[in-house]
Amino acid sequence: MTKEELLAKHGEPVRVLDHGHVRLIDVMGDDERVEQVARLSYGNGTRKVSETRSLLRYLIRHRHTSPLEQAVITLDMKMPIFVARQLVRHRTQSINELSGRYSEMPEEYYVPAEVYEQSTTNKQGRGEQAHPAMESSFRVNMRRSGEESFALYARLREEHVARETARIVLPLSTYTQWCTTMSLHNLLHMLELRLDHHAQWECRVYAEAIAKIVEDWCPIIWEAFVDYRLEAVTFSREEVKYIRERIAMDGLDLPNDDELTAKTHFSYRERGEFLLKLGVV
Amino acid sequence: MTKEELLAKHGEPVRVLDHGHVRLIDVMGDDERVEQVARLSYGNGTRKVSETRSLLRYLIRHRHTSPLEQAVITLDMKMPIFVARQLVRHRTQSINELSGRYSEMPEEYYVPAEVYEQSTTNKQGRGEQAHPAMESSFRVNMRRSGEESFALYARLREEHVARETARIVLPLSTYTQWCTTMSLHNLLHMLELRLDHHAQWECRVYAEAIAKIVEDWCPIIWEAFVDYRLEAVTFSREEVKYIRERIAMDGLDLPNDDELTAKTHFSYRERGEFLLKLGVV
Amino acid sequence: MTKEELLAKHGEPVRVLDHGHVRLIDVMGDDERVEQVARLSYGNGTRKVSETRSLLRYLIRHRHTSPLEQAVITLDMKMPIFVARQLVRHRTQSINELSGRYSEMPEEYYVPAEVYEQSTTNKQGRGEQAHPAMESSFRVNMRRSGEESFALYARLREEHVARETARIVLPLSTYTQWCTTMSLHNLLHMLELRLDHHAQWECRVYAEAIAKIVEDWCPIIWEAFVDYRLEAVTFSREEVKYIRERIAMDGLDLPNDDELTAKTHFSYRERGEFLLKLGVV
Amino acid sequence: MTKEELLAKHGEPVRVLDHGHVRLIDVMGDDERVEQVARLSYGNGTRKVSETRSLLRYLIRHRHTSPLEQAVITLDMKMPIFVARQLVRHRTQSINELSGRYSEMPEEYYVPAEVYEQSTTNKQGRGEQAHPAMESSFRVNMRRSGEESFALYARLREEHVARETARIVLPLSTYTQWCTTMSLHNLLHMLELRLDHHAQWECRVYAEAIAKIVEDWCPIIWEAFVDYRLEAVTFSREEVKYIRERIAMDGLDLPNDDELTAKTHFSYRERGEFLLKLGVV
Repeated sequence: MTKEELLAKHGEPVRVLDHGHVRLIDVMGDDERVEQVARLSYGNGTRKVSETRSLLRYLIRHRHTSPLEQAVITLDMKMPIFVARQLVRHRTQSINELSGRYSEMPEEYYVPAEVYEQSTTNKQGRGEQAHPAMESSFRVNMRRSGEESFALYARLREEHVARETARIVLPLSTYTQWCTTMSLHNLLHMLELRLDHHAQWECRVYAEAIAKIVEDWCPIIWEAFVDYRLEAVTFSREEVKYIRERIAMDGLDLPNDDELTAKTHFSYRERGEFLLKLGVV
Repeated sequence: MTKEELLAKHGEPVRVLDHGHVRLIDVMGDDERVEQVARLSYGNGTRKVSETRSLLRYLIRHRHTSPLEQAVITLDMKMPIFVARQLVRHRTQSINELSGRYSEMPEEYYVPAEVYEQSTTNKQGRGEQAHPAMESSFRVNMRRSGEESFALYARLREEHVARETARIVLPLSTYTQWCTTMSLHNLLHMLELRLDHHAQWECRVYAEAIAKIVEDWCPIIWEAFVDYRLEAVTFSREEVKYIRERIAMDGLDLPNDDELTAKTHFSYRERGEFLLKLGVV
Repeated sequence: MTKEELLAKHGEPVRVLDHGHVRLIDVMGDDERVEQVARLSYGNGTRKVSETRSLLRYLIRHRHTSPLEQAVITLDMKMPIFVARQLVRHRTQSINELSGRYSEMPEEYYVPAEVYEQSTTNKQGRGEQAHPAMESSFRVNMRRSGEESFALYARLREEHVARETARIVLPLSTYTQWCTTMSLHNLLHMLELRLDHHAQWECRVYAEAIAKIVEDWCPIIWEAFVDYRLEAVTFSREEVKYIRERIAMDGLDLPNDDELTAKTHFSYRERGEFLLKLGVV
Repeated sequence: MTKEELLAKHGEPVRVLDHGHVRLIDVMGDDERVEQVARLSYGNGTRKVSETRSLLRYLIRHRHTSPLEQAVITLDMKMPIFVARQLVRHRTQSINELSGRYSEMPEEYYVPAEVYEQSTTNKQGRGEQAHPAMESSFRVNMRRSGEESFALYARLREEHVARETARIVLPLSTYTQWCTTMSLHNLLHMLELRLDHHAQWECRVYAEAIAKIVEDWCPIIWEAFVDYRLEAVTFSREEVKYIRERIAMDGLDLPNDDELTAKTHFSYRERGEFLLKLGVV
């Protein structure tokens, strides 16, 4: 997809939650740029890996992430403040946020479409969906609370109270907006954390909206990111020991090249890496 | 002041605003450490500047800031979320904040002791104090709004709504708490911005509380910071041209060593630097 | 200048030193983007500053630097290792450097066209140019030393010594190459330090080559950067006190609007700021 | 180990390579501090994990790394420039390095005790040790080359050539020295990369010397780091699919609590996590 096609497809705001959005403003670099930079950096060392796809997958697999910093993206995002408060903690991005000291805050606040109970097993998460009757009552109360807060804000502003003071009565569900620029490397790191099922759902939907843009922007890197990071699993020292013993126990039918070729999409190089990890070579 | 004395003096929370605080947790390095590191780095080059004070003042004056990164501080801070949202933008610090997903938020929110009107000249600032009668009414309304938001929060929690969802009804005035670690260099940069009269007053009082700790922790660097950065003034190209012309116009009584010695506390080296800046040598 | 024009003009390597270069690979954002982001961020607060130029100059003058992070540049640079060692210390850039572990180092090393003596007053600088006869002899010796080092490198490589080991005999004058991506904000900060006359001359020429690109890329920001930062002068607390006294002493002819209008290019707003700095209002 | 014991044990330079060293200058925070900060941050959420060790292992296992930024270390390191060039790329540290512009460089350069051939399979690595006769000749040549470079440096300095120019004839094997401050989080990330067998051996020995300090400084975190990161293995999406199939194939003897308890040191919680990863629950 050319940059023009990318902007044509993602240059309009995509709705996220009830009043939020994600919109692509600009990109610099792409799969090909990352490849070129890696070849500059590793020079002769990359001659053997002749194809773009193989090289990019190799980089992601082996966490040679520095070439991913050469692709950069600028996004316009609108989200509730409690979401912004989580996303701002990714420090390696450049953010310019709407300032409530300079500007009147528009009356927009988030009311969840569905309300969930506290998880009984996960200290930071949500569990079952609330009973429909309760859910409806929760939503009514949250909306009323938002309306009252914004009504007070409006009254304070009418009485000329300083914007920087009046805004402090607004709820954490109030929408804010920012423009953020970050490298593909940092973006993927953020997505890895925010696409996780432990992330708050309201953050995750923003991560998902951004993921769709990245998939079109750098399709080869995205695919490798899914295979080698997003859906990869890290086993601890003890866990790996256990797995190796189990695989070894099977005696005769050790995984071999033929079997792996039949069952997986591994390249020759990846098969070798896998057998090494399993401790069977 | 030794580290023990420093912790004895600042290790208890100092109240800031109605429910907030700043508390010193730990420091590493001090004036002397910064001096030692500078001498390692500049080696022979620093032999001439024999005293600690002269060397440290030289570093600050000439923005050789890297040795200031070798002194590090950890603070415990409690502040309203709208203040935290401003301070978190200083990215070169390590923050661990109380999480509203894991923990119940205590019912503490900021109500300003004095309420100011929007400035008519400064888009981001406050102007005159509101009329006492109005001020009192504002405070009553803000308190009631806080109480209602926290009452809704409590009801939602009683009905087992997930903490991460219930909290979004809380106002931006709600108190949060964090532990932050940052280098003296980054701390001074933050203080420079947040002690400025353009900073929101509620941020400034936190900066002032921290400044008191720094003054005891690294007294020589702090003094130099005040002289060469906090109370220094930068004149643009055109402004400097104008100043030089004015100084030159005075003809016979150009500033000279005797005059400067009498009128200022300049060292010999600083006098030379000043005359160079004025363009009279 | 459009991006296409920019790449047409600066997309070919510009020679720096005897074998180095600077080459523009890509940019994202420009004067206009920075303006748009600032308007998003400050919202209503920027309505009054109607023109692009006034707004951008205001941002630079008041060190509202965050919008400058929304413009990003990628450069290809080739420079001696001792220069690279200085530039790499600017940490807020993304660098991919040619690796001497992966690649054979080409026989290219820097021999200065002119040789200078150690400054007698500046511990870190150079003083007078060496006598022509001496200079010529220095250059011969440096060239011979480089040739011998590279000859040893070649012999070690012929005998199959690992690249990572063989390269350690090469001199600090050896050329390396990298691709770097950084924001305009960080680039201007780097240029401010490296265009300074205290910077090593061999670094300065790279900064100058980059400055030419920035001047075409973001002409309005560049002009403001020169006026308000590069050629601005910061006076310490004591120095400002002295200047204010001198200006005040002149009695009747205090600088006023008419005089400033005649002598400077100040806008109305800047005149007010200047008088404030001088303490005459 | 108390801070005093730590400084007593590691406060003297430990020799690394022929002329280098690592020396502990200071630390702030430790296992216990990291625990306290995590409890502040996660609040009620950490009540259940009653012990320090369990909590710290949980943090490392789940990559909740931010509390690790609250422990900070300052090291004095002396190493060849080619090593420093690799280590400086870890940007999240504060470095003050000896400057060859200010100081005369002492005649110290690295000559490897053993010389290895280029690996035939690994583009960036070393393979077999060179034949003893060759090795000895290599070392003689490298030493002579170093002597000649330093002799030229001395001559240039005698003729008053500026230090910043004279130094460029010195080899990449020349020793430099720096003081570095970084958080435990960033240090562990650096060690993870530099303890790897793909890292150049001369970097690895510095990482190993630092690792010994960390092991005494934060023993519980270090143990968890070894178990969950250093000796952990990440399997890709396809690899995990294969492993799950293999484990499932074994039919009756699925790993269960009893077996895992007998074979591993897993806590109850870890057993559950492992079974989830294996897809057997």
